[in-house]
This record gives sequence, C-alpha cells and structure tokens, in this order.
Amino acid sequence: MSYPLASRMSGVKPSFVREVLKVAVRKDIISFAGGLPAPELFDVEGIRQAAIDAFEQNPQATLQYGPTDGYDVLKNHLIDIMASRGAPGLSAENLIVTTGSQQAIDVIAKILVDPGDVVLVERPAYLAAVQVFEIYQAELRGIEIDADGLNPDDLEQQLQALQAEGRRAKFIYTVATFGNPSGATLSLERRKKLLELAVKYQVLVIEDDPYSELRFSGETLPPLVGLTSVVDGSSEWVCYFSTLSKFVAPGLRLGWMLLPEGLVQPVTIAKQAADLHTSTFAQHVAARYLETGRLQAQLPKIRSTYGAKGHAMIAALEAHFPAGMLEFNKPDGGMFLWAKMAAGVDTMSMVQKAVDNGVIYVPGVPFFPGDIKHNYLRLSFATPSTEQIEEGVKRLARAVLD
Amino acid sequence: MSYPLASRMSGVKPSFVREVLKVAVRKDIISFAGGLPAPELFDVEGIRQAAIDAFEQNPQATLQYGPTDGYDVLKNHLIDIMASRGAPGLSAENLIVTTGSQQAIDVIAKILVDPGDVVLVERPAYLAAVQVFEIYQAELRGIEIDADGLNPDDLEQQLQALQAEGRRAKFIYTVATFGNPSGATLSLERRKKLLELAVKYQVLVIEDDPYSELRFSGETLPPLVGLTSVVDGSSEWVCYFSTLSKFVAPGLRLGWMLLPEGLVQPVTIAKQAADLHTSTFAQHVAARYLETGRLQAQLPKIRSTYGAKGHAMIAALEAHFPAGMLEFNKPDGGMFLWAKMAAGVDTMSMVQKAVDNGVIYVPGVPFFPGDIKHNYLRLSFATPSTEQIEEGVKRLARAVLD
Repeated sequence: MSYPLASRMSGVKPSFVREVLKVAVRKDIISFAGGLPAPELFDVEGIRQAAIDAFEQNPQATLQYGPTDGYDVLKNHLIDIMASRGAPGLSAENLIVTTGSQQAIDVIAKILVDPGDVVLVERPAYLAAVQVFEIYQAELRGIEIDADGLNPDDLEQQLQALQAEGRRAKFIYTVATFGNPSGATLSLERRKKLLELAVKYQVLVIEDDPYSELRFSGETLPPLVGLTSVVDGSSEWVCYFSTLSKFVAPGLRLGWMLLPEGLVQPVTIAKQAADLHTSTFAQHVAARYLETGRLQAQLPKIRSTYGAKGHAMIAALEAHFPAGMLEFNKPDGGMFLWAKMAAGVDTMSMVQKAVDNGVIYVPGVPFFPGDIKHNYLRLSFATPSTEQIEEGVKRLARAVLD
Repeated sequence: MSYPLASRMSGVKPSFVREVLKVAVRKDIISFAGGLPAPELFDVEGIRQAAIDAFEQNPQATLQYGPTDGYDVLKNHLIDIMASRGAPGLSAENLIVTTGSQQAIDVIAKILVDPGDVVLVERPAYLAAVQVFEIYQAELRGIEIDADGLNPDDLEQQLQALQAEGRRAKFIYTVATFGNPSGATLSLERRKKLLELAVKYQVLVIEDDPYSELRFSGETLPPLVGLTSVVDGSSEWVCYFSTLSKFVAPGLRLGWMLLPEGLVQPVTIAKQAADLHTSTFAQHVAARYLETGRLQAQLPKIRSTYGAKGHAMIAALEAHFPAGMLEFNKPDGGMFLWAKMAAGVDTMSMVQKAVDNGVIYVPGVPFFPGDIKHNYLRLSFATPSTEQIEEGVKRLARAVLD
C-alpha cells in the first residue's frame, strides 16, 4: 500500500549513517562510523545514585508532567554550564530543555522555514541537521570551511548574492567547535566576524555545540552567545544548542536551546506540540547528577580518553598509510577526523571493501549539501579502544592498498 | 525583535489550557482543569526498583544511544499490552516507541499533511491534537459525536462531500475510548462501521487511546486495530497510538504507535529527524517495570480510584446544581466529564468568577474545530481528592449561581 504522503517527505531517504551503523554492530567489525560516546566514560555509579536520590527527594514530581520549557533546577544548572563555557550572565528564561539537541534542530526549522527558504550550512555539514532542513523543504546553500571553520568571505559573498536576489537566508547553521564531520573549530577572530555579518545582514546564526566539552588540546573558545557583548546588536541574532549526550549520557536524551527573547514563545509552542515537554524523569535525574559535582571529576577523564584515542588514530594513520595518500586534520577535540583521499577515489564504493576487511567508516558524500565530493571519509575515534583503533586503521589500509 | 517565522506559525497561539494550568497551581484553587494523572497512583517503589535494576543489568545500554524505533524488550511488552486490550497477534515491527503520544500525533501529521489537506476530527476534539494539525496547516472538519462516540452517518456524509469536491481526507483522528473532552466511548457497532468507511473511502483512521486502561465500569471494547480481522482490508487503514502516561507515569514520556506496514519507514525517518530516538533510559526503566508484573496489581487501584473520583464528581454535581442547569455525561472511565450549560452561558467569561471562588475548569471553546459552542466546560476528576471534588463542585455552584 502506498499512501499519499506530504510533499515534505518526497525524496527523503533513511539516513545513510543509520544504515551503515546497522552493519557496524557486527562483533567482527571495528567501527569508525558512529558518533556514539565511549560507554566506559559514562559515570554509571553517579547517574544511578542521582536516580535513587530523585526518587527519594521528590518522587511524584519526577514522574509527573512538567513545564514545556523544562525543569527549573536543571535549567539553572545548564545556565551554570554556559558560564563555565565562557557565556556568563545568561537567563534561564531564554533556555528551553529539549529532547536531545536533535529536537532543537527540528523545532527551530519548524518555526522558521517555509518551503523554498534559504538555509546556509557548512560544506561539509552535520547530516542529521541537513536531513531536517530538507524535510522542511529549505533550499540549502553551503559555505566553504577550512581548518579555522567557516570562511567569512565566502559567507559574506553568499549573503550579498542573496541580497542581490532580494532574498534573505532564514539562518546560518554551524557546528563551530570540533565540527561534525570536519573536526574544524572556528577561530576567535572568525567568531566575531560571524556575529558582525549576522547583524549586518540581519540573519540568525545557530551555533550547535555538542562537542566543546571534549577538548583535549588548545585553548577554550567562548561560544558565539558568549561574545555578543563585543558586537553591538548581535544578541538578537544568535541561538545556541547543546546536549548532555556527549559528556553525561545520550540515553537521557537531554539537550537545550538558548534563544533571543523573540523566539522563546514560538519555540515553546512548537516544542509543546512536538512532545509536550522532555522527560521529567530524565531531567530530574540529570539535575541531581549535576548538583553532586561528580561531573567535574569525570570531565578530565573524558577529555584525556578522547585525546588518547584521537592521537592513537592519527599515529596509526601516519604509520599505515603511505605519505600523501590520506590527508586529514588534527583536531583539538571532539570525536572525528575528516580525511581526504586522492581525487577520483570513491569512498562510497570503497565501503564494501572496508567491511570485507573488518572495518567501517562513513563516506563523505551525505555530508555535502549539493556540490558533492566523493573522495572524503569521516573517521570516528570515540567508541573503539586505542588497540581497536590501531587494528582498525591497519584493516582500512589493507582495504585501500589491496 | 520580530523574526520572519514560517507561515505555519502564523496565528498559532499558546495553548489556552496551559495558560489555565498556570493559575491551577495556586494552592488555594481546586483544579478541575488539568489532565494530570493522580500522583498518589504512581507506583513509585516499583519504578524506583526498575531504575536500580536497569543500572544493574545493563548500565551502558541504558545510557547509550538506541534504535529509532525503540528498545526491543519494551516493544515486546507493549505488544503484550496490545493483546490484553483485545488486539492480539500484532508485530513489533509495526510498533514505534515515541516521546509521549503527543509525538505520535506530531509525526503522523508531519508525514501526511500538506497545507490545505483535510483532516477529520471529532467535534469536540482533543485540543493538543487540533493544535498540531493547525501547525501543519490542515483544513479541519469536525464530525458530530454523541454518547456512543463519533456519528458514522455524519462521517459518511462528510466523506461523500469531500469525494464530490474531488478531495480525500488525509485521515480521521479519534479518541474512541473515554474521549477528551467528551468522555464518550465509540460503541462496538460503530467501531466496525468506522473501519468499513475507512476501507470504502480509502482514508486512514488514527485511534488515539490514552485512557482505555482507566475503565471503572462497563465492558472493555477492543481498539480498532483489534477489529481489522472482521472488516476486510481495514488493516491497511488503521493507526493506533497510546501512552504509558496515564497508567504508569507521564514523566517517562513514553508512548507508542502501531502502523500499517507502508507507514513504518516514513514515520521512522520523521521520528529520527525529530529526536533520533526516545530516551533509552526511560525505555529501559519502563521495560524492567513492565517485566515485574507489578502493573497488574496497580491497575485495579488506578481504576477504582478514578471510579471513586468520577462518581464523587457526579454525585456532587447532582447535589449542588439545580436540576437541568448543568447536563453532563456519565463516562465508564477516563478522567473527564463534559458538561453543557444553558445556551447563552459563556463558560469562557465564567472562568474568572470560578477562580474568584477558588475553583478552575477548562471552558469548551478551544475544543471546537470551527463552529464553536460557548456553553460547554470540561471537568477533570483525576487529580483532586474526593473531598476536594465535593468542595470544588460547591465552589463552582456558588460561582454559577451567584
């Protein structure tokens, strides 16, 4: 039976990465494909105790319906986290708890995007965001990125081109710190420039920041929402999304949005229509957990473990691939290396050979919003052990060099 | 600052009920407004123990990302619940776990509704569903209901009228058992008739069933999805939504959808874009809880408590209102009475007087999709105690009779 679906679903395909991940669960395969945090870094004892405490302290509120914008105690802890990231003085009134940061992406697109509206994304861009924007039938345009993140000159050219067409982008979406898949981080200078362009062209900038806690080298940079005081008028043009998934636990499905005042009400309405509110149970447990201060002990472990894994992958790639065959960035944090092979190599058709050799990665193709490049691949170092990383890179080299 | 919002957000207002509920939290007010389950009926000890067990048995999976369609163990328990409701033999492949049944409503509308598409709803209808359909810019048409649920003759007339216009409704949305706000339950004969009409006019029927476990009198009726074997071809045209919110705990935010095969993939894609998946943490805890069998001991308590509360409200209304002033149904379950006052009474402007007297209810207006009636009110008996119900009805009578 084929049903008359809404036109927004035409041409939407199941996520290629999700399909790849189905293969990735095979025990004999070493997976560089997923974005799953290392499960050995979950503070199981701390979260277990937080769950017990939530039931002790306030069992009925933990299990009852709650406000759409989130549990106030958790909201205040998230405001404290923002301060620790270089964005002090934000108000809990502008913060909405979401069901993972994926919901933040969905809700912002829902309230802003009409079919045909322009959305600017990095090239390459986070593919689950691209998928959302496609469902809302946005016209996606890609901004070039390099090691310092998105290129402000290319961005300004595109904003000017839009202006010349009499159009305005609905927003710019960026993973500014340890980009997915690029691993790139927007420099401080470019962060300020991005805010200036937002004000000049009156366009919203959405910073999606799942990874900034996973820094293992270099200096912390403030999020855009922490820099609005240095660029006049920019506070009206910045949204910030983040999540507990990468440094507490993804199974809680807890994310948050910080919004300029004028977007709080429409986002709240859309969020309410989407799921009434995020699990109070998960929110109460997370609030108790953040209260204990155990996270402060956990974060250094998380950072050093990802640092060790990232360096192991870099060392293995340098050891097992001939010089020049595979170029890749050396990120200061996050979960991903973004690697480029010679022009003409097709990393999509190479996947099967990799699987035959017992390793899997994500080909670069689905990350490109138009103007697809076929010779890239994303390698995640988050889930496998350093030993598995060494072995997996060997297998990858075998697959490529065979 | 006013931002250029998507056209789907124009005219969407914050939920009136949510606004009413803000007043309802005042300690001096007895609230008949909310749809919150009675917190004294949460099996706190059982759910607490289930959380501890989930951490013992499989801590990392409890905290990690999971499949979009849900945790397989929970899915199988939900299939068992379907069998206990009179729909045996369903497949877990057709079941998708959602973030509350609100998400089920949002996702089905997202994949099916283009702006201007017709959606048929009961008149009066569940208002949070109406709000979702309005966000997706559906054209809503209301079907008359009476004590036996939606009127199949009116439904067929409307389906014929659509056919004459060369159009087809995208779906019919119904809360067939203990309707919200109506309290009405669709009779067995009408259930079969509804399935026949679905097949005849090739239109999807979505049965939203949050309340069927809350039956305190009368005989259990099977859901539509349990009657498809008696109406040829109807299995392709029925979706079923339910939730743990009303008989386990709303704070878990766990609902589920049963879908005909052809809708499983588009719903999965839309759900994935909306929040990747529902909290694994909440799913594992719920699965452990359902495994223990404690629910079987809890359900009779839940049913008898709501029965006592419902009967207390009926008795108080009969005692404190002059005969004929307030007509209302006597439901066999659920949480709501739907009451009608004399034509000319405006229950919306009466709210302030009720609040001044220390009681609150939801006026009927927001439940009507077009053709609004002003003389109805919804009274929930779920949250207050029987003593509060007696006192609250006295206050309401005072407000009305003053």
